[in-house]
This record gives sequence, C-alpha cells and structure tokens, in this order.
Amino acid sequence: MLRFLTAGESHGPELTAIVEGLPSRLPIQTTLIDEQLRRRQQGHGRGGRMRIESDRVEITSGLRFGKTLGSPLTMRIRNRDWENWKEKMAIEGDPPENLQPVTKPRPGHADLAGVLKYHHEDVRNVLERSSARNTATLVAVGAVARQLLAPFGIRIFSHVVEIGGVAAREFPRDIEAIPERAEQSSVRCADPEAEARMIEAIDRARREGNTLGGVFEVVALGVPPGLGSYVHPDRRLDGRLAGALMSIQAIKGVEIGIGFEAARLPGSEVHDEIGYDPAIGYTRRTNQAGGIEGGVSNGQPVVVRAAMKPIPTLYKPLKSVDIHTKQSFEASVERSDTCAVPAAAVVGEAMVAWALAVSFREKFGGDSFEELQAQYQSYMELVKRR
Amino acid sequence: MLRFLTAGESHGPELTAIVEGLPSRLPIQTTLIDEQLRRRQQGHGRGGRMRIESDRVEITSGLRFGKTLGSPLTMRIRNRDWENWKEKMAIEGDPPENLQPVTKPRPGHADLAGVLKYHHEDVRNVLERSSARNTATLVAVGAVARQLLAPFGIRIFSHVVEIGGVAAREFPRDIEAIPERAEQSSVRCADPEAEARMIEAIDRARREGNTLGGVFEVVALGVPPGLGSYVHPDRRLDGRLAGALMSIQAIKGVEIGIGFEAARLPGSEVHDEIGYDPAIGYTRRTNQAGGIEGGVSNGQPVVVRAAMKPIPTLYKPLKSVDIHTKQSFEASVERSDTCAVPAAAVVGEAMVAWALAVSFREKFGGDSFEELQAQYQSYMELVKRR
Amino acid sequence: MLRFLTAGESHGPELTAIVEGLPSRLPIQTTLIDEQLRRRQQGHGRGGRMRIESDRVEITSGLRFGKTLGSPLTMRIRNRDWENWKEKMAIEGDPPENLQPVTKPRPGHADLAGVLKYHHEDVRNVLERSSARNTATLVAVGAVARQLLAPFGIRIFSHVVEIGGVAAREFPRDIEAIPERAEQSSVRCADPEAEARMIEAIDRARREGNTLGGVFEVVALGVPPGLGSYVHPDRRLDGRLAGALMSIQAIKGVEIGIGFEAARLPGSEVHDEIGYDPAIGYTRRTNQAGGIEGGVSNGQPVVVRAAMKPIPTLYKPLKSVDIHTKQSFEASVERSDTCAVPAAAVVGEAMVAWALAVSFREKFGGDSFEELQAQYQSYMELVKRR
Amino acid sequence: MLRFLTAGESHGPELTAIVEGLPSRLPIQTTLIDEQLRRRQQGHGRGGRMRIESDRVEITSGLRFGKTLGSPLTMRIRNRDWENWKEKMAIEGDPPENLQPVTKPRPGHADLAGVLKYHHEDVRNVLERSSARNTATLVAVGAVARQLLAPFGIRIFSHVVEIGGVAAREFPRDIEAIPERAEQSSVRCADPEAEARMIEAIDRARREGNTLGGVFEVVALGVPPGLGSYVHPDRRLDGRLAGALMSIQAIKGVEIGIGFEAARLPGSEVHDEIGYDPAIGYTRRTNQAGGIEGGVSNGQPVVVRAAMKPIPTLYKPLKSVDIHTKQSFEASVERSDTCAVPAAAVVGEAMVAWALAVSFREKFGGDSFEELQAQYQSYMELVKRR
Repeated sequence: MLRFLTAGESHGPELTAIVEGLPSRLPIQTTLIDEQLRRRQQGHGRGGRMRIESDRVEITSGLRFGKTLGSPLTMRIRNRDWENWKEKMAIEGDPPENLQPVTKPRPGHADLAGVLKYHHEDVRNVLERSSARNTATLVAVGAVARQLLAPFGIRIFSHVVEIGGVAAREFPRDIEAIPERAEQSSVRCADPEAEARMIEAIDRARREGNTLGGVFEVVALGVPPGLGSYVHPDRRLDGRLAGALMSIQAIKGVEIGIGFEAARLPGSEVHDEIGYDPAIGYTRRTNQAGGIEGGVSNGQPVVVRAAMKPIPTLYKPLKSVDIHTKQSFEASVERSDTCAVPAAAVVGEAMVAWALAVSFREKFGGDSFEELQAQYQSYMELVKRR
Repeated sequence: MLRFLTAGESHGPELTAIVEGLPSRLPIQTTLIDEQLRRRQQGHGRGGRMRIESDRVEITSGLRFGKTLGSPLTMRIRNRDWENWKEKMAIEGDPPENLQPVTKPRPGHADLAGVLKYHHEDVRNVLERSSARNTATLVAVGAVARQLLAPFGIRIFSHVVEIGGVAAREFPRDIEAIPERAEQSSVRCADPEAEARMIEAIDRARREGNTLGGVFEVVALGVPPGLGSYVHPDRRLDGRLAGALMSIQAIKGVEIGIGFEAARLPGSEVHDEIGYDPAIGYTRRTNQAGGIEGGVSNGQPVVVRAAMKPIPTLYKPLKSVDIHTKQSFEASVERSDTCAVPAAAVVGEAMVAWALAVSFREKFGGDSFEELQAQYQSYMELVKRR
Repeated sequence: MLRFLTAGESHGPELTAIVEGLPSRLPIQTTLIDEQLRRRQQGHGRGGRMRIESDRVEITSGLRFGKTLGSPLTMRIRNRDWENWKEKMAIEGDPPENLQPVTKPRPGHADLAGVLKYHHEDVRNVLERSSARNTATLVAVGAVARQLLAPFGIRIFSHVVEIGGVAAREFPRDIEAIPERAEQSSVRCADPEAEARMIEAIDRARREGNTLGGVFEVVALGVPPGLGSYVHPDRRLDGRLAGALMSIQAIKGVEIGIGFEAARLPGSEVHDEIGYDPAIGYTRRTNQAGGIEGGVSNGQPVVVRAAMKPIPTLYKPLKSVDIHTKQSFEASVERSDTCAVPAAAVVGEAMVAWALAVSFREKFGGDSFEELQAQYQSYMELVKRR
Repeated sequence: MLRFLTAGESHGPELTAIVEGLPSRLPIQTTLIDEQLRRRQQGHGRGGRMRIESDRVEITSGLRFGKTLGSPLTMRIRNRDWENWKEKMAIEGDPPENLQPVTKPRPGHADLAGVLKYHHEDVRNVLERSSARNTATLVAVGAVARQLLAPFGIRIFSHVVEIGGVAAREFPRDIEAIPERAEQSSVRCADPEAEARMIEAIDRARREGNTLGGVFEVVALGVPPGLGSYVHPDRRLDGRLAGALMSIQAIKGVEIGIGFEAARLPGSEVHDEIGYDPAIGYTRRTNQAGGIEGGVSNGQPVVVRAAMKPIPTLYKPLKSVDIHTKQSFEASVERSDTCAVPAAAVVGEAMVAWALAVSFREKFGGDSFEELQAQYQSYMELVKRR
C-alpha cells in the first residue's frame, strides 16, 4: 500500500509531504526531485512569484546514503517568502493589530465554498491551502513515484496540446521526439507552428488582462500489462488516473486515449485490433484506448489528457460579494500568471506517476527493491508465456 | 465512512452488493431500486438480452420494516439466465467435457489485459466480471445513495447530449423540464430534434453492423455548499466524481461544468460571478464551474459529463489473436447492442449519487437519520449566517 | 489489498460476506469452509440453537470449477430459522400488529449503547446485528484466508487454555499433538486433566444458571519472517492481530506470546536468543515473543491468546432498565449457552488467519496463484541468503 | 476521516507527523503538545539519552493564530543529536569510509525480522525506525487528539499498575485522585506503597544489569455513549483500542475493563447492571466492561490496560548471531534504560486519545469546531430523550 499525505500553506513556513509504502533499497535522488520542481516553475505566461520561489526539496527521513530504508520518506520545501509573512501567518499568538482579513472571495476559486464549509471569517484561511502553490508537493511526491517506476522502464512525459483554443496538430512521428521538443518549448508544445501561436495568444491575453487555459497530454511509456483491475470499480486504473488528474487545481476535464472523440466515432473505428509477433508478444497498430482496456493497462503507452480552465485571478475583474458586508465588488488580483498550462502538465505527470505507482505496488508487492525486481521479472515471464 | 463491495459474474447465479455506513432509520424502498434497475435496461439500441433480464433487487440484510438498521445492507440481483449456464459456470466440480474455453480476446474489452494479469486460460474468466452486466450492482448501490440524499433535497438526473456525433443543441430553459423530457425519450435526450437524428443514427449503425458511443450529462440539484474539500487531493469532490465516472465500463472522458470548453475560453468568460440576495444567500447567474470550485461543491447544481466509447462487440469484426494458437482471427460477437449510452447515463447517475453520498456522510457524520437531519440543519444555519 | 464486508441479521434471511482481493486460480473448497462453520457450532456448553443451525456456505461469485477468478467471492449462509421470523423481521412493509418490541437492554451486550447510538426504539434492531450469530461470517471469511495461506505451509489451530478459572497446565511436548487433542476434546482443551475439570465447571455453572468465560490460544505455524512492519504503527502484525481478536464479540483481552507474563519477568528471561543452523537458517530455542518482534513475524510460530468474558445472557438475572418506561427489571434470557469459549477459539483462528492473509497479500502482491507462488519463493530465497 | 502519517529515524535530522482530518477553528496549543512530550521523557529507570533529548514540537502547517485551518497539521520534532550522526546517517552521498555497519541483531527487537523483510545489510537501517524514539511522534499526534476531545469533556490519564511483578493494590476511591498521584510519582503509580517497591525493584534490576516491564492503565473520562460500532468488526472501538495499543513498541498484551479477569469470573459477577436516574440518565454501579459493550462506548469511563515487556537491550547480554559472519555473539547494549513503563503509559494515553478521536470524528463529522459542537450537542439531546 503506497500512500501519501501533504501539508502546508502557501505563505506558511514550508510545505511537507510524507510518502509511505516505498520498498527499501530503492535509489532516490534529491536532484531528480528538484528537477521536477524546477520544471513546474517554468513556462511562458508565468508571473513574478515563480521566480521568487525556485523550490528545492529537503529529505529528512526514509533515505540513507541515497537509498530508501523502507520507512516513510519526508520531503520539505521551504516557502522562501515566509520571512515576509511571519506575522500575518503566525502559527500561534494573536493576529497582528493591522491584520486585514481577506473578505472578498474570488470567483473560480475555493474561496467562497471554503469559507462556508469551514466557517472561516478570513478567506486567507482557505486560499492559503487551496492555492496552486501546493501542487509543489504533488510534484515532489510524483518525482518519487517516477524513481520507483524508472528502473522498470516506465517513463512519463507530457506536452501541451492546446492553449486558449490554439491546438497542436503536427506531432513528431517518433513518440520519443515529443518530449524532446516539449522540453525545449516555453509552452511545452511539440508542434513548433502551434507553439508560436500559443505564445502569441498568451501575450495577447496578458496585454488584455485576461488569462488562458488549455489541454495537456501525459504519456507513460513502458507500462506493463496488468496494472489496475476490472474486478472492482475502485481498482480500475482509468478511474484512478481520472481521479488523480481531476484533483489538480483548475482541471475540469480528463480523457483517456482518444477520449471524447471515441464518443463520436463508430465502433469500427475506435477499437485497437490485436496482433501477435513472436518476438515481442501481442501487438497493436493503434492505441486509441490510451493503453487501458477494461480498467487495466494493456501494455501500450498510457495516454491521458486534461483540460485546465484559465487562471481565475484576473486583471480584468469579476464581480463578487464581500463576505462580511455583503457588498458587491470587483474581484481583486492576487497574482499575475496569464497561463499555467505548461506547469500544470508537469503536475499532471506527477499525478499519473503516482496513480501508476500505486497500481504497480498493489500488483507486485515486495518490500525491498530486489524483491520487487524479482517479482516484476517473474510476472513478465508469465506474461510472455500467454 | 460509506463504502461498498460488489460481486458477481455475468452468467453466475447472482450479483451481490453490500453497502456499509448508512445511518439507521433511513427509509429505503426496494421499488425505488427496481425502478433504477429498470431504467438501466432501457433505451433505443439495446439488443435481446436486456429483455431477458428485467432485474429486481432482493434485500437480505440491513433493513427492517422499510427502514435501515444501521447495519450493512445486502442487495442481490438474480441472473435469470443462470439455469442455462449452471454447468459452464459451475462454482465447483470439474468443467463439463464439452466446455469450449473462450480463447479469442475482443479488442476494446478487458479480455487480453485480464488474461495476462490474472493468468487465465479461458477468456470467459475475465469477461464474466468485466462485463457491463455488472453495472446493475452499481445502479443498485446508487439507488440506495439516492434515497440517502433525497430527504435532503438532493435530486439526480441525466440526459444524453450526444450519440455518434449527433449533438443535442436545444435544451429546455427550465432545468426541471430536462429530466421530464429525457425520461420520455428512448435515447434519454431532451432535445426532440436531436433525439430523432440520434435514433436514426443508431438504426443506421445497426443496419451496418456497427455501434455508437456518445456523451451523457448528469446533474445533481440541491447539493449543499461544502461537499468535498481542497485540503487534500483525495478529498476533492471533483476528483471523486471523475474517478467514479471513469470507472464505469466504456467511459473514456469526464468533464465537470463546461469541461474541455473551459480550456478554450479566456478567463473573463469562464468564471461564475458571485452575487448576493438576502432571501437566498450567495447567487450565481452562470454555472460554468458545474457546481464545484476548488474541489468543493458551491451550492450550484453539480453538472458532469462522460464520454462513452461505442460498444466493442461488433457484427463488423475486428482482428484479434487466439491466446492459445496465436492465430489471427476476426473477433466474434457476443451480444447485440448497438448503443448503450442511454443505459450508461443511468449508471452515471448512480456513480454521481454514490460520490455525493460519500462526501455527504464524510461531512455530516451521524448514526441515525434523525441525527443526520439535525446535523444537516445546524450546518445550513451556519452557512446562512456567513 | 485484501478486504471484506459482512452483512446479515441473526434472524434475517441470511448472512452474506464478500471477500475482495484474492488472487486468481487459487483452489477454494466449500467443504473446507463448511468444516470450519461446523467447528464453530460445537463445544460442550452450547444450548439448543446451535443444533438448529448446522450452517453451510453457498458461494455465488468469484469461483469457477473450484478455482478463484480473481473477482470478489460471495458467501451466503442461510438462517434456517428465517421462516419463523419472516414477519417480525420483515425487510419491508409494516410491522405485524402483535409485534412486541424488545425494550429491555441486557447488561454486557451492545443493547443499551446501540440503542443510544442508532436511536432505535426496539432493542432487537441492535441485537440482531451485534449477536454472536454473526461470527459465522467471520469464520467463513477466515476459512477462505486459510485456503490462501495453506499452500504456503501456513497452518492455524487453536486450543482452550482456561475456562472459568480452570487452567490447562500440561501440554504435549510436540506442538503438532496439541491440535490433534484439542479437536477431540469437547472443550477444545489439549490437557486431558484440565479438560475434565473444565467440563465439570461448565456443568456446575449450567446447573446454577450461570455462565463461564475463558482463554483460548491460537497458533499459526509456517508463517514466514517479514509479515507486518515496524515502519508505521498501522502496519504492525501485532496491532492487526490484537485489533482483529478484540473485535470478536465478548473478547476483553489479547496477548501475544507470553503476554502479560512478559510484564512480570526480568528482561534476562523474556527475550528469545538467536542461533544459526546452516541447514535451516536462524533458530530460536524459545518463542516467548509469540513469533513477532517489532511488529514483524520472525519465522517462529505466531502465538496469540484471547480472554472471553462469560456469555452475558443469564438464567440468573441481572438488573436493567426498560428503555421506554424507565422501570427497573431483571434481564431476560434469550438463549441458553453456558460457555462458548471453544466456539470463540474457532472464530479466533479465523481472525488470525485473516490478519495474516492481509499482511501476506500486502507483502507479496501477485494477481494469480502462480504469480504469488513465484513471489513467495523468490522472497524465501532472498531470506535464505541473509 | 481522521488519519496520520509519521516519519523519521531515531538519529536522523528530525521526526515528522502530519495529521489530516481535523475540523477548522479548533484551538491547538504547542505548549500542550510539548507538555506531553516532556511526560514521555520522564520516569524512574530511564538512562542518559532522555536527558539529551528534551523534545519540543514545531508546527509548520494547519494552524494560524492558534486555531486549526482545517488543512493538514504538520509537526516536527528535531533530533538534537543529529549533529553527531550527520555522516553515519547521511541522507545522500556515500557512506563514510569508517562506517561500521551494525551486523548484530538484538533478540527482542525488530532487528532480525527487519533485516530479512527489507533485505538490509546494516541492522541500523532497521533499528533507526523501529526504535522507541519514534513514539515521540505518536505522543505528539495523541496530544492533538486530546485537544480535539478536551472541549467535549473527554479527559485521558494513565497510571502504572505493575512493574516487574510488583502490583499496585490500593487505589484512591476518587478516580480523579489517581492522575493527581500518578503525575507526582516517578513511576506514575497511584499506590504509594507499591510505588516504593517498584522503585526498589527498578534500582535492583539496574544494579544487576537487568530490565523490567510492567502494566499500565489508561482511563478516558467523559466519553459519550455511541463511539465505535457493532455493525462491522473494523468499526468496533475495542478493536481499534487494542490495535492501537498493541502497535506501541514492546506491548505484548491488552485488556479492556477487567480483561483476563473476566475470563475467570462467572457471568453473574462480570456484567455491569443498568440503572436509571432521571437527573443523569442510565447509570452503572460497576464498570467491569471498561466502558465498552458490544464494541461501543456505553458512557462509562473507558479503561484499558497494556502489558509492556522489559526493554530488550541488556547489560546482561543475550546470545545472537552476526548476520554477515553467522558467528554467535552476546548481544550488545545500545542504551541504558532499565524500565520504560512510565513513559510507555504516556504513549498509551496518546494511542487511546487517537483511537477515540477517530471514532469521535467518524460519529460526528463536522468541518468546523462550531459545527462539531452543534452536532455533539444535538446528539447528546437525542441520547437524553432515550
């Protein structure tokens, strides 16, 4: 059983994550986690705060000489801005006299629903936790999951396929070329022509005080057949992936494989015919299912897509109501990002890595890395014999 | 903590579900469950088996004189065809001599992935459980969840918005009119013009030996603000809804509110401005968020949409490979439905009801119906004061 | 992840259990489950109802030709008395006119606490589920766990070591002889001299209208080292065993190894010294730890003990208060057992089997019996090399 | 759903705990947590390290101005010795050249089982996590649970009833006097006569290079009726308490109420008769059940007892085997405590607080402290009407 808890407020002293259920003796590198944190902080369309942050993880348990101990792994990410917030976000003691509670809930955020649910009188008590800042811990957790999966040949990448209505159309034939290009693109787009238009769209939106959403795709290569299960709804890999992706801030849609397109095509054009090649086993010429049939990975690349709404905070204000005075106002601006889709794609990779890792651990068990490797191999041999 | 387990093979003696975590003294009616089972079995485009089935639930625990006891509720649904399968699906004893194992995995089903994962030699051992037949238990479980939510004014309906590329366009202004029309439509569509073209498309597909998928929308009215949470990813209502819907057979995409459309619009057109009316509290003129902001219900109708791929079993065959001989073949036909989107919409309602019920129980606790009612009311009064 | 749900009222139509998480292709025999159900119904000191019951399990899912499918396994046990209770325990419809609600909570039962918690007005609504009758499903679930563990050489037995203050003293040197003797004893006691005095004590208690409790021991042989874990409290095997045993009706104490005796001895006499024999690996001359150190099985027999209080229902009445009139009364008698310790020992075995099976599945993963076997063997080879 | 994860190695930089599921607006005081940490570090019979430590908690999330935010609460406890272990316990990088792996597993510890399970080559990789040092986080978690329960009048205390065979006999009549005395006793014993003999026994054991275990009792006052449930085994309060207590290092036995004594008495002397007093509701003259009947709290004080084995590390050595050379040796001494029962009692309180808090949250739900209070009150009124 692989599980995690994350904690931390956006302007609190630090973010924390504990990951429990890793096998022992697995190599984990802090630099590989930092690399993911760095990727999350990039992308054309981000405002000022991203540059302040430059996150780094500090591991404080579960690892010794670069290998897991089998015990829970703790990761901490400091909020570099904490010094400036020490009083307004003080853990204990009285509020500073000049504290201005936030009383203006922003449309499109958890603000109003959070205030009602938790009976808060200061919207800050909601937004500090609901903030996308906290996806940093998800990325860190995902970066650990990736390092669990990597030795088994599972590799996860993402690319942005749409921003503000501008869609990528031309993808490299070689799937390996997609992440290469995406990593070099400031909008994580593998179609250079679309990339240019996406950047344009972002720049235009910024000038207009507007924001843009988009769609990103996450691909996992090397996923063995047999992760997830059809035997009970809550064990399906597609359900877990969808749940994990939809749990990322601002995501409003999730697709697996060709997704909504599958609803429009006739059955004769949707399903992936099965072939067999003695050298490699069962084969498919297409992968419209996105690597999952009946809730189970089928050995093809796992392909998922998520739709992100535009960032709700706007220069161009939205109407809202003060929770104390009940007076109408035009919603204030807290930050200055125009488009966070490239960053969200990195968070999406992390959640996909996590969902796969959970199903991987569930399938293979094993308490040490050696045991997990032996188990993986004996399964793959069973598979070959089928 | 509300939880369930379901069990049963498609041609086994019966399907079973146990629901644990209901409050005591809640009225539950078998007829209301049967009504949902009946709705699942209808719709233009279904083949012969649906007529055989005509499911009815039998409750064997957890209920006395029509009220819950607080103990687990068991529901059984007999498979009326069991008499004809008693030997081929015998629980114990040797297989009949003339047993023909299924060796031909169907593209688009769990067949091949399931055989690899579970090391089965007879594909029947997979398809009996992965079959959509088993959504009957989900509908039964959802029908219980509905009866938990109904006394609190929560009402869930669905309608089909797209089949085989034919999209509904004109919806009744009055949201209440949608379910009325949908219930009378053989394709569960509230737009009469689109309905006619959907029926046409299904009939044409049937003649061509093809199948069609589509998109359905589920709406929950009366959901109080505050279900779900932004404080941890696995407690978000949007994540739970997406996970639950994507866990239904053949679903490949899920949207909340305007979903993928939100990725295409600028921020200024996406978010739902907040108003206030002393008589009713906070108001919204739009509901593009689908009733969920920051993973928390905001008091607006919860609106989700799911994309169903076409049924994989085809008269028009697909290539596959025999798992024993490794010979290529053209995939066989096991059943004769052309389009199951209207039925899937009913399953979708059930899963939405379940996800809401889980979050509802989590928020309110309470061991008896009376206690739950008191808790609901005291919360709603707290909400009014904000 | 291995999990179960049970359901059923004592005088309802039937009891049901669903077990989810079994590997596929595991042989399961109904007769071996029935054998455990039969053992639960025996023992000197039981009254009339046990003879009525004679439970048999019916499996209705998850099994085909005697092997698991990997899908959830459903077991049903009919309540043979249901015909006589159809009206008083009717699932739906109005109560019969002559229904006499139970209003007299019995001390020592869940009756009063249950009525308060669930707001019931008829104590029957509590006692029907809290009844020890429902341990039948636990025994059935445990009988499945045993069949999961048996192929790996894990064997679980129990014997009664104390009844009403009469303690067994002389145990066979050969641990294998204990279950042999216990199975032949009407009080499941392996010490013939104590057995005679236990029977005497029970007979005397019956004559006096009294009841007796006692202590039973459960032993699991063949448990590999490494089940459970010290890395997080909720993964410890000792915690799981204690939780599972204390969850059996009427159990008020649990010990592992020498238990409370360990609190009285000096450290020099408590711990099991470690030896090494090239032929078999690490050895111990003693097993005071009961096979668990640091929450992890150490390869020695797992030995647990549980204390059962006397059955609360008495011929010799106890004072209580009518929940409607608030009048004091002397508590009524519902059944006639004098001592149920031998039966509880069988339930104890079931819960130990379950807790071990959960930890076994957690450690080894594996979706098919073949995969699980390969994983078990590769781990045992890793162990040998240490 | 209330849940926690803890992390940390005994000689790592720090211990961490995250608690998720607290209501918002609940007052939490760091000083009250520190007070519990201090209590854990005391007691006659502790060696040198305890004085080094003097733990203090630092809260880094989930709290603002002394009230919970509803988001996860993070607690960190620094290991003050970390400076001396930085190289030997380095998170990353190569081991220091002079690193001496621990190869000598100590009987009575997780050492050997842990090495086998996790395939470790250095026993330190086990003992760092299995160490009782890590109970500091449990105490911190429990101190939060206490602060959740305290506003509802639930108060938890402990006292030591036996050390090394010396049993307390004379308890103050007034239950309130027990904690008063216990807090002043260096062995946490409320019987002054036994206290003196316990201290003597510890001193003698220390002189002899031996260690002593004992038995402690934890009492929870003010627990409302209705926590836990009989409807499913895993929801019983007795099972949760037993599981939680048995998960503490070195605990080998758990009792509820009179525990094993209940197995020896006849039924007529075991059960707590029920009375009624219009002013206070249902009453009991005795509390042999320890406040739990049928797995549910009945409104009486919850009383549990746990048996702790003597600390395994001995001046008087035990035989063991080097895991690399397979040579026999006499087990080394790592620390110098003679008796840790008084400290374990404090850990026991924490685990009892946690188990109660979980059942309390499960019963009452509620997202804010205000909501929880309203829910508690409306339930207590329902109870009064019964």
